Amino acid sequence: MLLGSVHSFSQAYLDKREAFIREETSMRIGANLKLNYREELVNHYLMVQKELTVEASRLTKEPYLASRHFYQVKEEIEKTTIFKIIRMMPKGGNLHLHDATIVPLDWAIKTLTYLPDLYTKAREGRVPRLFRFSDTILSSDDGWREVADLRAEMDILSCNDGYSRKQRTCNNKRLDEIFMSELSLFTPDPYNTYKSSNDIWSKFNDFFTTFLSLRSTLETAEMCLVKAVEDFYADGVQYVEFREGIFYHTNGSDLTEEYMRLVDKVVQLFQVAHPDFLGIKFILTGHRYFTEDNMQQRVDRVAELMKKFPHLVKGFDIDSHEDVGHRNQFYLKELIKDGKSVLPFLFHAGETSWTQGADMNLVDAVLLNATRIGHGFAALKHPKVMEAIRKQGIVIEVQPVSSQVLGFVSDLRNHPGSTLIANNDRITISSDNFPLWGALPLSHDFYMAFMGLGSTKDDLRLLKQLAINSIQFSTMTDTEKTEAMSKWQQRWDAFIDEVITMYHLL
Amino acid sequence: MLLGSVHSFSQAYLDKREAFIREETSMRIGANLKLNYREELVNHYLMVQKELTVEASRLTKEPYLASRHFYQVKEEIEKTTIFKIIRMMPKGGNLHLHDATIVPLDWAIKTLTYLPDLYTKAREGRVPRLFRFSDTILSSDDGWREVADLRAEMDILSCNDGYSRKQRTCNNKRLDEIFMSELSLFTPDPYNTYKSSNDIWSKFNDFFTTFLSLRSTLETAEMCLVKAVEDFYADGVQYVEFREGIFYHTNGSDLTEEYMRLVDKVVQLFQVAHPDFLGIKFILTGHRYFTEDNMQQRVDRVAELMKKFPHLVKGFDIDSHEDVGHRNQFYLKELIKDGKSVLPFLFHAGETSWTQGADMNLVDAVLLNATRIGHGFAALKHPKVMEAIRKQGIVIEVQPVSSQVLGFVSDLRNHPGSTLIANNDRITISSDNFPLWGALPLSHDFYMAFMGLGSTKDDLRLLKQLAINSIQFSTMTDTEKTEAMSKWQQRWDAFIDEVITMYHLL
Repeated sequence: MLLGSVHSFSQAYLDKREAFIREETSMRIGANLKLNYREELVNHYLMVQKELTVEASRLTKEPYLASRHFYQVKEEIEKTTIFKIIRMMPKGGNLHLHDATIVPLDWAIKTLTYLPDLYTKAREGRVPRLFRFSDTILSSDDGWREVADLRAEMDILSCNDGYSRKQRTCNNKRLDEIFMSELSLFTPDPYNTYKSSNDIWSKFNDFFTTFLSLRSTLETAEMCLVKAVEDFYADGVQYVEFREGIFYHTNGSDLTEEYMRLVDKVVQLFQVAHPDFLGIKFILTGHRYFTEDNMQQRVDRVAELMKKFPHLVKGFDIDSHEDVGHRNQFYLKELIKDGKSVLPFLFHAGETSWTQGADMNLVDAVLLNATRIGHGFAALKHPKVMEAIRKQGIVIEVQPVSSQVLGFVSDLRNHPGSTLIANNDRITISSDNFPLWGALPLSHDFYMAFMGLGSTKDDLRLLKQLAINSIQFSTMTDTEKTEAMSKWQQRWDAFIDEVITMYHLL
Repeated sequence: MLLGSVHSFSQAYLDKREAFIREETSMRIGANLKLNYREELVNHYLMVQKELTVEASRLTKEPYLASRHFYQVKEEIEKTTIFKIIRMMPKGGNLHLHDATIVPLDWAIKTLTYLPDLYTKAREGRVPRLFRFSDTILSSDDGWREVADLRAEMDILSCNDGYSRKQRTCNNKRLDEIFMSELSLFTPDPYNTYKSSNDIWSKFNDFFTTFLSLRSTLETAEMCLVKAVEDFYADGVQYVEFREGIFYHTNGSDLTEEYMRLVDKVVQLFQVAHPDFLGIKFILTGHRYFTEDNMQQRVDRVAELMKKFPHLVKGFDIDSHEDVGHRNQFYLKELIKDGKSVLPFLFHAGETSWTQGADMNLVDAVLLNATRIGHGFAALKHPKVMEAIRKQGIVIEVQPVSSQVLGFVSDLRNHPGSTLIANNDRITISSDNFPLWGALPLSHDFYMAFMGLGSTKDDLRLLKQLAINSIQFSTMTDTEKTEAMSKWQQRWDAFIDEVITMYHLL
């Protein structure tokens, strides 16, 4: 009797508790997807791996990989079964990338810096270097050196013992290493190396100066595009949207239209062999360091390019370091005409740790009817902004690894994206400037989204929904989306089959 | 004409923008407080300092102090005018503390380890040490050494060159240093020293073993209480609530009732000289490592103590490491009788980086009608929990520095408390185990709340509201609160006068 009554008290509580949790769980991204039998097999296997990983680190001092800095755990992550499965998975589109950072740095160094007629010059007497391709010899009086010469010279310097020169193991390495350390944001001790977010941004901005001058001809741009499309496709990415897209030659001439035609050509060639590759689109950008006149010119130019390349150019954004540059509000005159937004906007906003500082860009993003927000890291600190985001259906482009390496969050389990996932907010996962930190086009970010931002219980449905989101929330037309979903679904089914075979799940 | 029309477009947008921001800002904690003229003077001065600090680090690589790890910026913070003003400010009550960590570690070492009849023993052949006060000589066969002997011996060892011995500068330091490094969580390189949160908790648990055996008599407890009350009061804290409160002698006897009477005595004596000190109350705790039987015994004992000391014992909590110990759900049978919570609950919950793991304690906290939640770090990841917290008026005890040193957040501007402040959620600021990381009783946490969790524009009203919250959300009775508010208001007015005088603001 007593036992029965104790039991019934507990049971009433447990029922209430279960209903509460069920309701809350049903609000999570992907929670309402139904998996078929074959997907369930993969899901079960995946979740056993996940649970083992969580429990192992919950109860020991073994660090949980998704809780540590990417630089310190990248190689460990790559050894895991979960990562291997995520790498195989078709992840849909990658909607937030910058076309200046789409190829691996070691590839760029090994390929682009070995091209003929490439000159380099130290900027302000120190690294990073400017590059210029030229048919004529650039003046050494102005500090320009031919890269091939410099490399041969450093080769002699570093191999002057004769012995190692004979072995040829020292050849060419020294300059490559310098270029690599100039370009990469990697450091083995991120927290002590970068003491403020401006430290990181300083290195970040140096990268762009260096790399953009290296990728400054249509030839090098084509090499990068071809390599990038191959890498994206191999990493399970069928579609990409690039920020920037305005292309200047080192000599100052605007090659944007040639660049757009080049993109079309590269995509079409790739599609011959890979008809399920869906293409590339652009959100052209202005920068926060522009004068108002610069911005007006850019806005006009983008409007013109949207008309010329309607299938390629899909909107406008303002990027570069939010904390230090002008805020969107500074350019209102250029962004609004006749009371309306002059272009479709997809704004970077809230990529800051300040509250009521640069994050006020979020307010302008929602009031200017941006359809997507890049990063939105600070959005949760703005209740009215969050309300508008939900009401207007604005999508937040969450970039897990980028947020971490740029110093916003240490343990990705506490990235604001974890709250957005819990609330079924409209998000996509993308990878920003992934080559700068040695990530693959999307796999590492999907791993972090699944193991870090997602809950311990979020399963294949989260991954699947994120892939679907990346198509649904893209700038593709409805017709394009329908075709995209069908091509993605084919790869998805093949992926499920592949995992079942590889891990003997049947 | 054209200019006029451009102007009116912008103006319409700017009006809408301003209204949006005004509405959002009015939702922030403290936003609706009205400051009087003298408060405005102080506020203006404070905000000039804040703005200068923000702008200086926004535009340079100078790290923003509230964005860095406490261990690396504590001394810099203490030099700032803002910290000095916050230190002078009457901060009301500190509602989340543990009575095992209320005195500075260096004071504890200099005072408690120099008492006679204190013996020490290495645990498992290594630090940290157990302590025991004893009237009889404890057996060296069991590994017990008298601390005075050990100190003299180490003194000789470290001063055996005769010269330094004569100078007496080496005396006693070596052992004190060992004790200090055993007890403190401090490390100059926190991110690399502690790779997982379990690393930190391991050291944390060692502290309790060591320190609790050192503070194991009513005499040492009294010394600690007297010192703590002095320090609290000097730091602008007029009222405290301690977790734990169950007092065992090293010999195992339960001295809780004597301890409660001791607390009354210490408070009353202190109030003779400081009638505006409001007192101490307790939320007694059980631990997550208890068996269900242990927990039942503790619950019964707490109910008994609440009856005996109704002015002192105000509720029940379950503490210790959430990730590893049992969850609250494990003890449902002990926590619920006849369908109702057996005691007023103020639960630790959501002090974890996992989602849908230990953070599920948050669900039980709201379903068991906890009136306050300790930490609640993970609450934002639970939309239904947040809804219940808001509906039930549950208070979240935010502990800025604790969350950082225990590894949940690196940059305090991204602590979830920043979102709670933006939403006018019911929070208080407290300092948890502040002596373990060398903080003052409340000043450092208020600094971090103001400069880190608060926005760049949050002003004196945030600080004032947080102080008011700490009284309104305490376990005091309504009568006690009225008296408390009046005594706090007197100190507040005096504080405003003092700042005006000190910084010549009139």
